Amino acid sequence: MTHIVILGCGFGGLWAARELAVADVQITVIDRSNHHLFQPLLYQVATAGLSAPAIAAPIRHILADQRNATTLMASVSAIDVMRRVVVLDDDCEIAYDYLIVATGSTHSYFGHDEWARFAPGLKTLGDAFEIRRRILMAFEQAERETDLARRAAWLTFTVIGAGATGVEMAGTLAEIARHTLHGEFRRIDSRLARVVLVEGADRVLPPYPPDLSEKAHAQLTKLGVEVRTGCRVTEIDEEGVTFSTVGGNERLMSKTVIWSAGVAASPLGQSLGVPLDRAGRVAVESDLSIRGHPEVFVIGDLAAVISDGKPVPGVSPAAKQMGRTAAHNILHRIKGEKAEAFRYRDYGSLATIGRKSAVAMVGKVKFSGFSAWLFWLFVHIYFLIGFRSRLMVMTDWAWAYFTFQRNARIVVSAEDEPDRQPGKRVNDTSKEAT
Amino acid sequence: MTHIVILGCGFGGLWAARELAVADVQITVIDRSNHHLFQPLLYQVATAGLSAPAIAAPIRHILADQRNATTLMASVSAIDVMRRVVVLDDDCEIAYDYLIVATGSTHSYFGHDEWARFAPGLKTLGDAFEIRRRILMAFEQAERETDLARRAAWLTFTVIGAGATGVEMAGTLAEIARHTLHGEFRRIDSRLARVVLVEGADRVLPPYPPDLSEKAHAQLTKLGVEVRTGCRVTEIDEEGVTFSTVGGNERLMSKTVIWSAGVAASPLGQSLGVPLDRAGRVAVESDLSIRGHPEVFVIGDLAAVISDGKPVPGVSPAAKQMGRTAAHNILHRIKGEKAEAFRYRDYGSLATIGRKSAVAMVGKVKFSGFSAWLFWLFVHIYFLIGFRSRLMVMTDWAWAYFTFQRNARIVVSAEDEPDRQPGKRVNDTSKEAT
Repeated sequence: MTHIVILGCGFGGLWAARELAVADVQITVIDRSNHHLFQPLLYQVATAGLSAPAIAAPIRHILADQRNATTLMASVSAIDVMRRVVVLDDDCEIAYDYLIVATGSTHSYFGHDEWARFAPGLKTLGDAFEIRRRILMAFEQAERETDLARRAAWLTFTVIGAGATGVEMAGTLAEIARHTLHGEFRRIDSRLARVVLVEGADRVLPPYPPDLSEKAHAQLTKLGVEVRTGCRVTEIDEEGVTFSTVGGNERLMSKTVIWSAGVAASPLGQSLGVPLDRAGRVAVESDLSIRGHPEVFVIGDLAAVISDGKPVPGVSPAAKQMGRTAAHNILHRIKGEKAEAFRYRDYGSLATIGRKSAVAMVGKVKFSGFSAWLFWLFVHIYFLIGFRSRLMVMTDWAWAYFTFQRNARIVVSAEDEPDRQPGKRVNDTSKEAT
Repeated sequence: MTHIVILGCGFGGLWAARELAVADVQITVIDRSNHHLFQPLLYQVATAGLSAPAIAAPIRHILADQRNATTLMASVSAIDVMRRVVVLDDDCEIAYDYLIVATGSTHSYFGHDEWARFAPGLKTLGDAFEIRRRILMAFEQAERETDLARRAAWLTFTVIGAGATGVEMAGTLAEIARHTLHGEFRRIDSRLARVVLVEGADRVLPPYPPDLSEKAHAQLTKLGVEVRTGCRVTEIDEEGVTFSTVGGNERLMSKTVIWSAGVAASPLGQSLGVPLDRAGRVAVESDLSIRGHPEVFVIGDLAAVISDGKPVPGVSPAAKQMGRTAAHNILHRIKGEKAEAFRYRDYGSLATIGRKSAVAMVGKVKFSGFSAWLFWLFVHIYFLIGFRSRLMVMTDWAWAYFTFQRNARIVVSAEDEPDRQPGKRVNDTSKEAT
């Protein structure tokens, strides 16, 4: 029977596997973590609003009833497209007839991997726990610190990169300081914490239309976030961040820095032997296969795809659509039919900023504020996999909304992670530690 | 104003702090973790039934409205009872007028600390995550393993010590194998997993009346747990466990071993300069203070207390009662009144074994099976701190009961903890890593 191997079980990989549910094929889904992650809400775990199980589900459980699918929790060290095998970390080889590579992306520090220690990015549950720990511990340190300058540095939070994740992080951080923690400390006033959002471009949410960026900027400011656009980071260390702006260099003393500025594709793309773009993404044919290997498909954040003359953005709807197209094209090939070209259907963009505010664009319709936030809430709960998660997330959010409390304010370990390495990846089956 | 320092915010410390809520004193509560933990349900986090936030609440939040209380997240390195100061890990000293030491207990490997790597115990949220990781990863490894003997070792789970925690762990593990994971693997049958419960005494739940032990034994067997009483562990390594029984030595190949056999008191007791018992607990006077220092009280698992001629067990109701008595006695001392002697009120014992089974003893009334399980459920949810947690736990359990699913089956990191050290402690403010 035809054996299809899918590497990575994010949105791309999972949607491909599901599309093949009734096909007469054998599927092996390989992921190095045991769970599918609802990435768009990961910032809520990082900011102590949701617990990890609320946004993650065991892959094995999701695919339990799909009898043609086998789940394997393993790291992939290489792909040999000539011999059509995937090599696992224990040197075990898995042969395939068709391969879908959906191992996603990781943070990119633009050549400054040494910044990773000081400014973690947000891609995995491990990242989210680490960021949560740093945020909560910073307030604890501020409470203990008697030196005023050092206390101020503990109470200054910097988010680098004002894309959707950066905007969400900054807005939520401001809410935590103003509302959640208010009244719980005796020596500091948590409301005086500074949240600084730094963006290299001249406006927040650069991929959005300028008027929505403006609205998001206004909503952030209202929440108490200091927005700094046109600001390029030149240095990050334990004590803070240095930017270059039009006015020259500037130093911000800030003990907690969160990186949401750049992504790079999973390094597994390198073993395919085809050209990569500057971000390490694999240039694919219009049917999502790679040149010379019609049996190998690359989808999701790892793929550099052009649709209707425009590059397809690295968002979850695009990954799902690519997963479906790759699955269809494998079935076409099996039947000897012509493969279909991938076309991205853009349903719109949506970013939340905090309690009750968001910006949205659906087709040509743009809206912002409370209505956009309600829409965002609905869309995200709807798309969360499984009724169970939906119920939990709704309970958590209803509670958080009415009480301003955040339910997951738990630091498992007070210690620093001993070996925090740059380049943690989501959906990645390659060898690095999660 | 009189300054009362409380070390450790488990049941003892927290109940002491609350009892002092309306007193005209200043209270500083010091704990090295940021949360109060509902220890009796920790095994549910370890077995992926509950998420960490469901059974933990930020200490700072619990005490936010108690205006005479300050929360400090810090590790304590020593107590100087002569100078009446507590020394923190950053050498900062905190002076007290009255001190309550409630730093709890840790695992004891009876002089075999080298076993800790292979057989983690269950005291902190970090422990629970590590045990959860090992259990879930063992099934994953079994699915990948082709050698039948090695696969069997991955599918053999050993719980050492059949006290309440051991019985709960073993029963839940059997349920996970029989129900939760059934049908999700393709190469192994999770129902064939062996769960072996090893106890040195001649029956499970040794502190309970013999007829309840018998009932618990029968319920465990029905769930599929192999109960081995009169079995002493002589060796634990990466591959399994060696016991000595009446029939001689026996070797069990088992990749996953959980330790619930022994406890030792927090080492902070050693800096008090008073006699300790064999388990390292501090012998206290009848009013819970230590000899020669009527301003220092020791409560909870760290205290060796005799009440009505019997030693008080290391359970949460005893810790809460001691917390209240210590608080009252401090107020008596402040007013120049006579201190009261501690008397333990034993409300009964309660241990759950799995879905629908438990054993209970309330006063002289003993019962078991479904009614005991319902009672257990009610008592545990009732005592969980805060309405929020109660709601979450109820939702989680209702779900788990009707679907056999376990909602928290998430492994954050697939890697081993790099430096797992023996002697992780709950409520402990001393220096070791959590």
